[in-house]
Amino acid sequence: MPPAQSAPAAAGPKPLTPEEEAVVRALPRLIHALPRAIDTDMMREQRLPNTEYLALIHLSEAPGRHLRMSDLAEVCEMSLSGTTRVVHRLESEGFVQRVRCAEDARGWNAVLTDVGFRRLEEAWPTNLAAVRRHFLEHLAGLDLQELAAALQKVAT
Amino acid sequence: MPPAQSAPAAAGPKPLTPEEEAVVRALPRLIHALPRAIDTDMMREQRLPNTEYLALIHLSEAPGRHLRMSDLAEVCEMSLSGTTRVVHRLESEGFVQRVRCAEDARGWNAVLTDVGFRRLEEAWPTNLAAVRRHFLEHLAGLDLQELAAALQKVAT
Repeated sequence: MPPAQSAPAAAGPKPLTPEEEAVVRALPRLIHALPRAIDTDMMREQRLPNTEYLALIHLSEAPGRHLRMSDLAEVCEMSLSGTTRVVHRLESEGFVQRVRCAEDARGWNAVLTDVGFRRLEEAWPTNLAAVRRHFLEHLAGLDLQELAAALQKVAT
Repeated sequence: MPPAQSAPAAAGPKPLTPEEEAVVRALPRLIHALPRAIDTDMMREQRLPNTEYLALIHLSEAPGRHLRMSDLAEVCEMSLSGTTRVVHRLESEGFVQRVRCAEDARGWNAVLTDVGFRRLEEAWPTNLAAVRRHFLEHLAGLDLQELAAALQKVAT
């Protein structure tokens, strides 16, 4: 997006095509509005913030249903401090336990409890419906396989 | 994304197809990794956070190069408090001025200064290159017009 009335294009890099610009301008919806919309549904129907839901999902998929805090932060794309806050909340509700790493006494694992697993089973239909309603339904007609392959390369 | 070993599908909503799931699982890259990658480039080459760049861009496109703080927050998809912080930083560098709204004595406008406009002209090639490198280049082969139309409907 060049600033309006910018220097002549010849002097700078090639500006975006109208189609590229339309995609780039739609990005903030995806980056900000979509997570907000999903979170609103999760809070209204489940009283579970989507960040907590995502932490539970990733733990449920890990071998032994546990992850080091730093690995959980990485798969959730969250900061370590944000992950620590989320895990503390999940721990206070009995969904997660924190235990010392066997291999490294300074490290902590977050472990999904059975109560946490049942919470996840309750919550996933809401998350699924929200993802469908706010996101997937709008992609009808696109080649999802091609889109997924493209998105997996983004920002790598 | 249903939890692993969840209840039989018949009991709940229709799970995602593999293609849908691949798209949904790629979303965090778009939502977290892409803004971080663009911001890293903007900081390294311009010492200008991308949130500040976006505020400058939106002001440059507004009639009279000014926007009410609440309208700036909306177009930037930021909270009002986040926008206030960004505008204070831009003001301290002389890129933006805050002036009382003519129509509403309680409201404030953020106004792009000439210095701010020149800063934007300096910064946009970096932003453009970052958007191309981290995002658009990976979409090669997709129908961008169709994709833009789909994304514009997301979370509406």
